[in-house]
Amino acid sequence: MAMRDFSQDTNALSLNTATLGHNVDGHGAGWTCEQVIDACAERGYGGIVFWQREVTDPVALGLRTRAAGLRVDGLCRTPYLTGRDAGSDDAIKHAIDTAAGLGAPVVTIVTGGTDPGHKGVMESQKRLCDRLAWAVDYAATHDINLALEPLNPMFGGNRTCLFTTADALAICDAINHHRLGVAIDVYHVWWDTTLAASLASAKGRIFGFHLCDWLENTTDMLLDRGMMGDGVADVKGIRRLVENMGYSGPCEVEIFSSRHWWTRPPDEVLDIVKTRFCQVC
Amino acid sequence: MAMRDFSQDTNALSLNTATLGHNVDGHGAGWTCEQVIDACAERGYGGIVFWQREVTDPVALGLRTRAAGLRVDGLCRTPYLTGRDAGSDDAIKHAIDTAAGLGAPVVTIVTGGTDPGHKGVMESQKRLCDRLAWAVDYAATHDINLALEPLNPMFGGNRTCLFTTADALAICDAINHHRLGVAIDVYHVWWDTTLAASLASAKGRIFGFHLCDWLENTTDMLLDRGMMGDGVADVKGIRRLVENMGYSGPCEVEIFSSRHWWTRPPDEVLDIVKTRFCQVC
Repeated sequence: MAMRDFSQDTNALSLNTATLGHNVDGHGAGWTCEQVIDACAERGYGGIVFWQREVTDPVALGLRTRAAGLRVDGLCRTPYLTGRDAGSDDAIKHAIDTAAGLGAPVVTIVTGGTDPGHKGVMESQKRLCDRLAWAVDYAATHDINLALEPLNPMFGGNRTCLFTTADALAICDAINHHRLGVAIDVYHVWWDTTLAASLASAKGRIFGFHLCDWLENTTDMLLDRGMMGDGVADVKGIRRLVENMGYSGPCEVEIFSSRHWWTRPPDEVLDIVKTRFCQVC
Repeated sequence: MAMRDFSQDTNALSLNTATLGHNVDGHGAGWTCEQVIDACAERGYGGIVFWQREVTDPVALGLRTRAAGLRVDGLCRTPYLTGRDAGSDDAIKHAIDTAAGLGAPVVTIVTGGTDPGHKGVMESQKRLCDRLAWAVDYAATHDINLALEPLNPMFGGNRTCLFTTADALAICDAINHHRLGVAIDVYHVWWDTTLAASLASAKGRIFGFHLCDWLENTTDMLLDRGMMGDGVADVKGIRRLVENMGYSGPCEVEIFSSRHWWTRPPDEVLDIVKTRFCQVC
């Protein structure tokens, strides 16, 4: 199957609002969701992914987004399911309710880290499965997909117990529910030499694809992501792998960059994201 | 095969001198190699691994170490073989010569990152193979082993093109030389759910095993390693995997910790390393 041609088509382009730095104190221009929506719509973006923290009235925000001609492509994200900072069942339900209100098809899951009192990964993965079992049922009753996002192994300990696409798909196998899949983020998977092999079993289970880049000299674990084209990831190669498995959904640009992109005017950032999307993704 | 019992036996315990912070300006007590040797010998350590930068007269330092009753367990490390900061052939030979002079059995290789002008990992791995092909021949003529150390994927870009034990063993397969193997470092591999499966083909090819821990809330990519027992890694479980593959060599403690261990008196650090080695490793 040929890859989609994005050189003149930005319908698949989706903005994760964190790219504008809204979510960290002192960063970004402090735009409202409405400003973000209008700026994306003006530029021909196809959709937006909101963060839970910025959504006060999900139904109204979903309507407002669609009225501007955009999709709500997802909600970022549930609270952690494992680790010291795991959220309550109610908080997980609240995230799913929010997505349903927005009319978002999917909620991303960053799992959370190692459960206190345990060493290594396996016990936390077991707890993850326990919590996912009911969460995915709850999501299904709201027609919401859950997308497990494996994170770069540097986020072990306090943020994730899934480190590779294979890890995430193994959890999907264990739960075996059509509402549970994976989100593939270039930042987290670019290094994985087994990615193609892992994705071979992912057909129908890729619920999200996230764009950014890995900077050659990354200086901060969390907030030094690169714009597509500025780093060492084979962004297009990874998209090819994902699309070979039948993925035809949004490409969500998610760049946490406190030292660079979050210091620039949002209008400029949105222009550059669009250009890079067409040129290098 | 039963694991080795370290509860009262520190013969396998080896100090990587970086644990005392010697190698970063302003950190550590500035001990000479001789002071480190004597302090390790007093405590019953079995060996030491030196860094290239601190070795001026390899033969004399090797003799001095053995005269104190210690082994020289290795040399850390060759210059990079790939990436923007790759070292010259001469610099790689110099590292091997130094190891030979010291009487060290092995030189650790941190590969270096992504070659300029390329995206992803594969092209850099090809260059790595090209350079290893002659380097391992050169090492063999000096009776030196080379140990490829896969690094945590956060070191992609500028420090490594090998991210997992499987990555490193694949390079060993490609080169297929009895002088080329791998070094397994808890910090870099603790998260890898495929570690046991990967190590299944590593018999006779594990040339090093490095101890430290992954702190739950790691705050710095490079210099925030934990003391064994303080983090979330299953240190003993990883040692079991390595020993199941026949590894019976030194356990090298290598803790880069600018905010904690490098600020404490070296004598204290050495005492605690020894205690933890016996209690939790």
